[in-house]
Amino acid sequence: MQEQNDPTPLSRVGEFGLIDRLTKQIKIYNDSTIVGVGDDAAVISNEKGFSLISTDMLVEGVHFDLLYTPLKHLGYKAVVVNLSDIYAMNAHPKQITVSIAASNRISVEALEEIYEGIQLACEFYKVDLVGGDTTSSLSGLIISVTAIGIADKNKVVKRSGAKENDLICVSGDLGAAFAGLQLLEREKAVYEENQNMQPDFSGKDYVLERQLKPEARKEIIDFFEKEGIVPTAMIDISDGLSSELLHLAKSSNVGIQIYEEKIPIDPTTVTALEDFNLNPTTVALNGGEDYELLFTVPLSLHNKIKSAPNIQIIGHITDKKEGTHMVTKGSNTLVELQAQGWQSKMDEEY
Amino acid sequence: MQEQNDPTPLSRVGEFGLIDRLTKQIKIYNDSTIVGVGDDAAVISNEKGFSLISTDMLVEGVHFDLLYTPLKHLGYKAVVVNLSDIYAMNAHPKQITVSIAASNRISVEALEEIYEGIQLACEFYKVDLVGGDTTSSLSGLIISVTAIGIADKNKVVKRSGAKENDLICVSGDLGAAFAGLQLLEREKAVYEENQNMQPDFSGKDYVLERQLKPEARKEIIDFFEKEGIVPTAMIDISDGLSSELLHLAKSSNVGIQIYEEKIPIDPTTVTALEDFNLNPTTVALNGGEDYELLFTVPLSLHNKIKSAPNIQIIGHITDKKEGTHMVTKGSNTLVELQAQGWQSKMDEEY
Repeated sequence: MQEQNDPTPLSRVGEFGLIDRLTKQIKIYNDSTIVGVGDDAAVISNEKGFSLISTDMLVEGVHFDLLYTPLKHLGYKAVVVNLSDIYAMNAHPKQITVSIAASNRISVEALEEIYEGIQLACEFYKVDLVGGDTTSSLSGLIISVTAIGIADKNKVVKRSGAKENDLICVSGDLGAAFAGLQLLEREKAVYEENQNMQPDFSGKDYVLERQLKPEARKEIIDFFEKEGIVPTAMIDISDGLSSELLHLAKSSNVGIQIYEEKIPIDPTTVTALEDFNLNPTTVALNGGEDYELLFTVPLSLHNKIKSAPNIQIIGHITDKKEGTHMVTKGSNTLVELQAQGWQSKMDEEY
Repeated sequence: MQEQNDPTPLSRVGEFGLIDRLTKQIKIYNDSTIVGVGDDAAVISNEKGFSLISTDMLVEGVHFDLLYTPLKHLGYKAVVVNLSDIYAMNAHPKQITVSIAASNRISVEALEEIYEGIQLACEFYKVDLVGGDTTSSLSGLIISVTAIGIADKNKVVKRSGAKENDLICVSGDLGAAFAGLQLLEREKAVYEENQNMQPDFSGKDYVLERQLKPEARKEIIDFFEKEGIVPTAMIDISDGLSSELLHLAKSSNVGIQIYEEKIPIDPTTVTALEDFNLNPTTVALNGGEDYELLFTVPLSLHNKIKSAPNIQIIGHITDKKEGTHMVTKGSNTLVELQAQGWQSKMDEEY
């Protein structure tokens, strides 16, 4: 955990008006936010279109380790993982609520740092923090965020619309967040053996940032809007490309063929994974927390998509009876996609 | 905790498809629920009016004790406390999301019982469970619920609209949930000393139910609608009448005068509190978890409100400079209202 000067124990929080302290900086970015923090419920105006709701919980020791997670980044990430779900419906997040349970080990200043990160994400993505809950916990820190978004009725993209011959596309690159996690876990182990050792993270900024401060792919949704593109199906990649492809295939009742050589992996990810003797493709398929978008578009959009920045075509949709496969690099053999996400199956969003 | 036959550890949950097991019974009650469980986000149609959002977290050891809390009731209560916040805005809850973090000590069957309670509440209040998250925790059980509701634009009731001379009203009766908690805590202490002792709860059904399975005051909101009443201000009583009155006074920038003899307290609550030498008025003012509605209406509605079932007029709004007071029974002296809710100030919703 971060070092703090004179940390204020939460037990003294009555004196300080915790909620006032945590929420006094809140700015409102959206006209649709009618009543924000400070009443029984937030009030949101929604004249037309659909509302979208997504929720996610981050638990200390399961989703993050306070030894190497800066609190500000933690707050930022807790927001981003939820916004990613809203973007994955081709929608725009507008409001969030945040609930935090914290043990007495967490100081008021630590909570303020988390809220700084939350507000930084709110500012960057122009979403409004409209409500929440702070409570004590017997042990550990838990952050639960709910995001509310809006979308045009005829533009909501579900997981279930992929059609045969559609192109399968991913944004950005994959595997970096998992590589960053391996690095952090290794340095933690080193630190626990010798607390004078300084971590050696030189040249590893990219993979570390992907793990500690991921971003949601707002610019892809903006690109769709600008180009008049509505994907046939979409999902965000929080649990490894492979298991997300299988979700998409199941929901859409189709088959899948992707090409190993097309999977986008950043060179620094490949370098970082060499230290751990990990195969980059395996990590891209099964590592988690990339928060890139996986989507399908009709074949007719091939040229438009091919020239787009940060989008890679990795394969195409097939008939269901052809199954879900990857064509390997070099040998060109078909291997079946497996659902072995990085997280236990206990960690499921629905 | 409940006894279980052959509890299934959560670590084996991959085999069972936990989310499928927990959500297979889900029914949809509202046309506005376009996409529920099973995609990145829920999709909600909202043609007119405002959306309302409220969120609340229940933490084991802080908000509930599994020794005496039936899991089904726990699930029910986790929903109800959120719906209460939506009703407190004069709105109708329509959808909820539920996030649960559970340690390995909690079995799959235990989670199913919690979900049974959640679905029972959904059925009773006709709200749809549209999304969520299940994850592991290192210790303890945490349930975070977000409720989404709708209201006519011109009927949303905030805390801030109370005007001088308005009548101050409460629904139902107060203090029972706190009395129930005292009973349960006493029997827990007895049980911990002698595990063969059976708890003696005869004649205490009402206060126990108020603690373990509270209800939200939907019928009051329905009554307002039927009678064409829009309160000037409203708040739900989750943290004791006194601190809610102070919230309302502060938000509305007014003073308050209530009468001790008018505070509605059930006779069984008074009887239960005698065992603990607790003053019923003190408990009504400072005990928590009643989930009744505290609201203000113009004086002109006096007759309509007076004849309504389950609503009690307890005082009136004064000018701010007259302060916030209670006129005591018998002696008729003015005492200042204190914010000493049952929960630590750490537990704050916003």
